This record gives sequence, C-alpha cells and structure tokens, in this order.
Amino acid sequence: MPLGEFDLIARFFSRPARRAALGVGDDCALLAPAPGMQLATSCDMLVEGRHFLSTVAPERLGHKALAVNLSDLAACGAAPLAFTLALSMPNADEAWLEGFSRGLLALADAHGCELVGGDTTRGPLVICISVFGEVPAGQALLRSGARAGDGLYVSGTLGDARLALEAVRGTLELAGETFAQVRRAMELPQPRVALGVALRGLATSAIDISDGLLGDLAHLLRRSGVGARLDVDALPRSAQLAAQPLAVQRECLLAGGDDYELLFTAPADRAGAVRDAAAAAGVAVTRIGAIEAEPGLRLVDADGRAVAATWGSFDHFRT
Amino acid sequence: MPLGEFDLIARFFSRPARRAALGVGDDCALLAPAPGMQLATSCDMLVEGRHFLSTVAPERLGHKALAVNLSDLAACGAAPLAFTLALSMPNADEAWLEGFSRGLLALADAHGCELVGGDTTRGPLVICISVFGEVPAGQALLRSGARAGDGLYVSGTLGDARLALEAVRGTLELAGETFAQVRRAMELPQPRVALGVALRGLATSAIDISDGLLGDLAHLLRRSGVGARLDVDALPRSAQLAAQPLAVQRECLLAGGDDYELLFTAPADRAGAVRDAAAAAGVAVTRIGAIEAEPGLRLVDADGRAVAATWGSFDHFRT
Repeated sequence: MPLGEFDLIARFFSRPARRAALGVGDDCALLAPAPGMQLATSCDMLVEGRHFLSTVAPERLGHKALAVNLSDLAACGAAPLAFTLALSMPNADEAWLEGFSRGLLALADAHGCELVGGDTTRGPLVICISVFGEVPAGQALLRSGARAGDGLYVSGTLGDARLALEAVRGTLELAGETFAQVRRAMELPQPRVALGVALRGLATSAIDISDGLLGDLAHLLRRSGVGARLDVDALPRSAQLAAQPLAVQRECLLAGGDDYELLFTAPADRAGAVRDAAAAAGVAVTRIGAIEAEPGLRLVDADGRAVAATWGSFDHFRT
Repeated sequence: MPLGEFDLIARFFSRPARRAALGVGDDCALLAPAPGMQLATSCDMLVEGRHFLSTVAPERLGHKALAVNLSDLAACGAAPLAFTLALSMPNADEAWLEGFSRGLLALADAHGCELVGGDTTRGPLVICISVFGEVPAGQALLRSGARAGDGLYVSGTLGDARLALEAVRGTLELAGETFAQVRRAMELPQPRVALGVALRGLATSAIDISDGLLGDLAHLLRRSGVGARLDVDALPRSAQLAAQPLAVQRECLLAGGDDYELLFTAPADRAGAVRDAAAAAGVAVTRIGAIEAEPGLRLVDADGRAVAATWGSFDHFRT
C-alpha cells in the first residue's frame, strides 16, 4: 500500500515541539517571539531542473533547501526559530524522503530551527520553505543602510558553486577531486547565521548573495541610494577557483550565483569590530571595496585600473 | 523584452508596507505581533492539475490561493496579519499575472492581510502561500479540545465544490446556472475568518474542512481522544445540492473536500453563544451532531438509524 500523506508527515517530518507553542499537525503553527523581538520571515521555492539537478543526493537537497532560507535570516541578522515545509513530489519515495528529511533536519538541528508545519502534495518536485527567526526590534540588518565611506565586505569565498555548475554543463573540465570540492559548495552551502547575528549594530547594510555578487550588490546600492568601488582582485576565492583562467574566475566570482555568502557594509572606523565579529562567528570576512556617494558600480583591479563589467546577474525570467 | 523577475514583483505584487515593519523587497519581512499575541502561521501549496484546473480564471485562482490559507487561520481563531507568496510559473504572462494578483490582493485587502514577501521562479505552475495571523496567547482554537457532550457544528453549506468537480469530470450533468453557482463555491471559497475570531473562548476545538468532512472530523476526534455521532440529514446543503439524488448528496457532503467551512465543537450549554457568534460573523452555523466518549464515528439519519459510511477522505498520495 502506498504511503499516505498523513503517514508520510508522521514518519519523516513529525518531531516533538520545542520552543514553538505548537508543532506539526494543527491547522496553524503558533510562534511566540520573545518580548522585544520582531519575527523575521522569508520563503524560497526550489524547482527541480531549475534550482537543483535531478541527480543531487536527497540528503544534500534537504540541506540546501533549508540553507538558502537560513541565509536570508542571516542577511537580516535574525536568529533561527522555526520553519515550515511545503513539498510537492511525483510519488512518496521512502528512500528519497528518508535522505531528504535527514539532511533537512540535521541542518535544522544545527541551527536550533524547528519544523512546525507544512503541506505535502503530489505533483512536480517543488520544495517551498518558509523560515522564521527573531531579531531585536529595530536591529534587523537591511539592504538600505549603506553610506558613502563604508567598507564593503563579503564572507567566505565566492564562485565555487558556479564553477561546479559549469563543469556539470560541460563548458569546462575539472579533475575528480576538484569537482567533488566545488560540487560540495554548490550542494551544501553553509548559511552565515552566526555572522549575521554578530553583525547586528555593526553592519550598516547586508544582503545574501544568491543571484551573483554583481546583481545582489546592485540591489543593495539601489536600496541605499549609493554607489561603490569594487576591487575584483580582492574577491576571496578557493584554491580550486584560483587555478582556473582569470576570465573564468571573474565570471564565477562576479556573476556566479548560489554563493549564500553575506555581502555587507560597515563604517570605515569599525574595521576592527568587523574582524572581531568574523572571528567570533568562525567565518572569514574580506574587505572587497568601498561605498561611494556617486551612484553606480566601479570595478577596479589590484592596481586600481578599471575593469569592464560584462556580466549579468541571474534572473529567473530572463535566462 | 520579457518581463523580468524583479520587474514582475514590482509591477504586480509590490504595495506600500502597512502594519508589518518591512514590506516586499528585503531579505526577510519583519513581523511584530502585538504584546500578548502569538503569531499563527500556515502554508498551503497549490499545484496545477491537482488543486485547480488550468481553465480556472486567474482572478479566481488568486482568490482561492489565499482563501485556503486564511481558512487555516480561521480554524485557529487567528486574525489575518500578512502573507508571503512563492510562485513558480512557466512564463511571465502579464494578462495572467494581472488577473491573479487582482483576485489575490482583493481578498487580502478584504481581510487586512498584507503581502510582505515571496519568491518567483520559472517552472510548473505552483503557488505556495504562507499566511500569518495574530491570536491572544493561549486562546488559539486547536483540534484537540473536544469533550464528550459537546455539540458538533459546521459553518455554511457543504458539498457544492465537490458537486462542481463531478460536473467537470463528467460523472453528472448540471444545468448551466446550477453549474455556475456550484463552480463559484469551488473557485471562490469564503474563509470563515470572522467566525473563527468570534469562536475564541467558546469553541472547544476547530478545524477547517479541506479534505472532506469525514476525514477532517476524524483528525479532530483522534486529536481530542473522543468519538462522535453525526446526523447526516442535518448536514447543511445548498438548494443545488439538495436537488441531486440522495447518494450524490451524501457523497458530496461527507467526502467532498474543498469546502473551507469550519467544523467545531462547543459545550452543550453554550448553544446560545454559538448562535450569537455566528450572527455576529454573518455566517450560518448548523449543529450536526455531538461528541461522545466512545471512540469512532457513528453516522445516523434524521430518524436515528445507522447510516453506512463508505466514503473516504482525500489523501494526496492515495488518490
């Protein structure tokens, strides 16, 4: 007998309620942010063939589906609290569900983020997660606070996920071990939750890089009403990406997408505090440029020479 | 030039923020429930061909996508606050988007429910809405509070949506005006938000009927650890349904699905208060049975004779 919808929820996704007032199984989940806290929420929808390959291991897909949402909380400086999962799938494949739920709940447990509700249905493979976090009222990191003179920073390294995608597409070839490493970056992004929390009261603006550095930086600059100078040679990259031709490096760094690193700004005189926050969060942070009053983005290399920008950012309805 | 993802959001879904602290366009939306209030949240995913027909008018689909979520808030006694929309669609069809957003936002406005964020992507037509409401701490209506002796009630009428679906399937024929009326029930359900709020502190348990009366009643009984006697002849039905053969009526009433009426219980000595709450909410409410200590469901007719139950409830992975 096929596994039913309610059995499926009970078997793979039901866990005892913890902080949330009610867990899986009533019409609504109830959330109670602590006094003085606002609730931050974000949702992302992942569609097979568009956001992930059918060949991805279910455990990694479960991880990534939640990771991209936690990354949005991180960009707001919110601490994870709970999430809901809506899942459409062609059939109730127990092996797939076992792997998917294992990867999903392992990342959830690592961040103290409780599954409190959701919906399952038959259909194309589509995953939609809504995540909830807490942030002290008025302290959420926004896209709109960057000011001329601020330093521009990015966490971790950029471009590996795009390098992996290009290898899958066959536009370049990677050695087995190199491919395994960059594929890990593509399939197992680490949301920078601790860094986001550490940047409260310090960063003047923040966004997570999901559509590519140039595109997401453009959002931040537009919302803040400022411009920026970006040192393309300062962009942090893995040894795997650094071994590629410079043109490939720049394409992956600037227009890669799927990085899930934090891009943020902080006053120039707070550089030491940024270093301390990064150290406390255990995440590398690199200064990659500066905010300027003049609108627009100026790309320069290590020698200060202008670099032409011919890269686009990912738009789901233009590509 | 095709409409891009960000243009699309700006054009069809961006509105000025009201009660929520932040509107569409940052990494997260921020929500601040009033002091003493809990936040209730629910999500539903609608897949073309599974939850709606490709022939449905986009405006009606926009209405229904939010209505089914508001119905979950109603079942908890929560007052609507905000929602997020994740939308996957094959292409950015402007006429479709115009109609869809019009129907969606009209219902949102009618309930003071603000669109605060979301996600759009290319893919199969899938709509995932997460809705947020407020309820005083400890006053949410749950599925688990029904007690022996309570009266069992349902709002509105049942079965019209199923009758419409059967006409679409071709298993029965309806006259044009009859079909138009029941199709309206299927495509434009009215979430019983005001009734849910009015039932706070009065109903001992509640659930909304989305998968069919028998199935949803079974959830309520199981969670409450009780049984019930249900008078099938007392089930409220439209004139259109009442004109059908009795077997069709019972099938549609008991196992219809897509009703989005509230099923709830209240102490026997509060029948007057239930009538007052229904009148205040402007919704008909009918007593259809009673909760009993003995587990299980006993169907009876108006003469108290047992009626055989051969109907199932809708399960997305068994049908």
